Amino acid sequence: MKTYLDCIPCFFRQALGAARVATDDVDIQRRVIDAVAGMVPDFPLDITPPQIAQRVYRAVYEITGNDDPYREEKRHSNEKALSLYPQLKEIVRGSDDPLLTACKLAIAGNSIDLGPQVEPVDLDSTIATALASPLSYDNYPQFRREIQDASTLLYLADNAGEIVFDKLLIEEICREERIDVTVVVRERPIINDATMEDAIVVVLNQVVPVISNGSDAPATVLSQCSTEVRDIFNSADLIIAKGQGNYESLSDVPANIFFLLRAKCPVVAVPLSIRVGDAVLKGQTD
Amino acid sequence: MKTYLDCIPCFFRQALGAARVATDDVDIQRRVIDAVAGMVPDFPLDITPPQIAQRVYRAVYEITGNDDPYREEKRHSNEKALSLYPQLKEIVRGSDDPLLTACKLAIAGNSIDLGPQVEPVDLDSTIATALASPLSYDNYPQFRREIQDASTLLYLADNAGEIVFDKLLIEEICREERIDVTVVVRERPIINDATMEDAIVVVLNQVVPVISNGSDAPATVLSQCSTEVRDIFNSADLIIAKGQGNYESLSDVPANIFFLLRAKCPVVAVPLSIRVGDAVLKGQTD
Repeated sequence: MKTYLDCIPCFFRQALGAARVATDDVDIQRRVIDAVAGMVPDFPLDITPPQIAQRVYRAVYEITGNDDPYREEKRHSNEKALSLYPQLKEIVRGSDDPLLTACKLAIAGNSIDLGPQVEPVDLDSTIATALASPLSYDNYPQFRREIQDASTLLYLADNAGEIVFDKLLIEEICREERIDVTVVVRERPIINDATMEDAIVVVLNQVVPVISNGSDAPATVLSQCSTEVRDIFNSADLIIAKGQGNYESLSDVPANIFFLLRAKCPVVAVPLSIRVGDAVLKGQTD
Repeated sequence: MKTYLDCIPCFFRQALGAARVATDDVDIQRRVIDAVAGMVPDFPLDITPPQIAQRVYRAVYEITGNDDPYREEKRHSNEKALSLYPQLKEIVRGSDDPLLTACKLAIAGNSIDLGPQVEPVDLDSTIATALASPLSYDNYPQFRREIQDASTLLYLADNAGEIVFDKLLIEEICREERIDVTVVVRERPIINDATMEDAIVVVLNQVVPVISNGSDAPATVLSQCSTEVRDIFNSADLIIAKGQGNYESLSDVPANIFFLLRAKCPVVAVPLSIRVGDAVLKGQTD
């Protein structure tokens, strides 16, 4: 999807949030804001929001001298999610439709997002609500069929912490079907997106192969991805893209993608006729 | 109060909102955003937020060629509030403490604000909640004493529509005490702030004298106000300042002011230890 003018105030909010985590120096925070302001006239609105966010965060990291301000937050998210894993695993295995339950949990895990989300989310209540509620955008029947038919699956992860929830879903997919799954994470730290380090911490790399994508965009910008990732993307029977960043970067790419996310803002929610915070499981062709 | 870096994303959001009401031309909307971005490095954070908002809105009006984009919205707000007036008057007169009830309603009326507020507010439910709830920041006992002691009162109005609620409170003040009340409105249209035209439409000018302040700031910036308004400000026994803009512009001015508002954002709510949306009746000396 393209970038909307609505995204511009959000870029400033995100830049300020990251700058404040990176440094307590208000003068440096002000320099970040001024730098983003200087970039605005050059923002091409025909590229996707995460491509612009990538430029904004690079500026934040350069000016503050901190290229991973959310490092501690990511560590905390992984720990919190890992502590929930055993009970979530039981919930999945004990449910009537473990694959659906794992999908709902994977989407609930997408609430761990420090980018476009305005209000911090209480993970426990988000999980409880997710388990008790239907999906707001629900292509699960098609998704289930595609999973049954696919031999190869590319799983584009999103955030740290969230990848523990992804692990639950991936384990469920692998249990139900004979399917080769590859997980892709970001190449370098960007916002709180998952990198190889996070995949190793949550031991996802011992379940399925995990590779990094060659890019520090908070999304999957194919032109920035490694040849290996692009080849897997082009040959996979099925792609699961987690989170709003991956949705924003891939919503116009013709491929057999299912997007699993919580809608973080009206720019995404309104065209899908859902509300901010709603759970989405959407096929690309729907 | 000074301007916080948090205010800068909000200025962009407000500029975009006003630009979209002023014109459907996305290129012009983009020019507005770029113009505000160009102004950011020159924003002095030691002046109040409404002083910067004044510059931002002037740019919006100049670039879009529309110097009163919220004109229709203001007309609608006045009509809606006037339609509620008879029943609200009955509620005030029938209540145990009519002055307190009128204060609560005047604060509920401050929900009609198209500036810093992110989500539009349902006026009917806001009124019902306001009547049923205590004030979140409550200096009403002191306020009541000051009203009883004062001979002259300056009432700084805020928004169109809201001034119907102000009229209810002013009528109650005049009923209870022998007190000379003067109402001040903005000189020219800015956001949805009340001007003399609105005061006339809601017939407030037939209840008490109404004068305009000489400024198009969405607030009371004394240095921009007419000598007449400054003289009344300096000599009044008591000042009622409605809304967040007046609070932001006068919170550091030593005077016998009571601020009546709904908190619109964390920058105001957090230092007062209340939540966004909460009702405030705060004395300057508290």
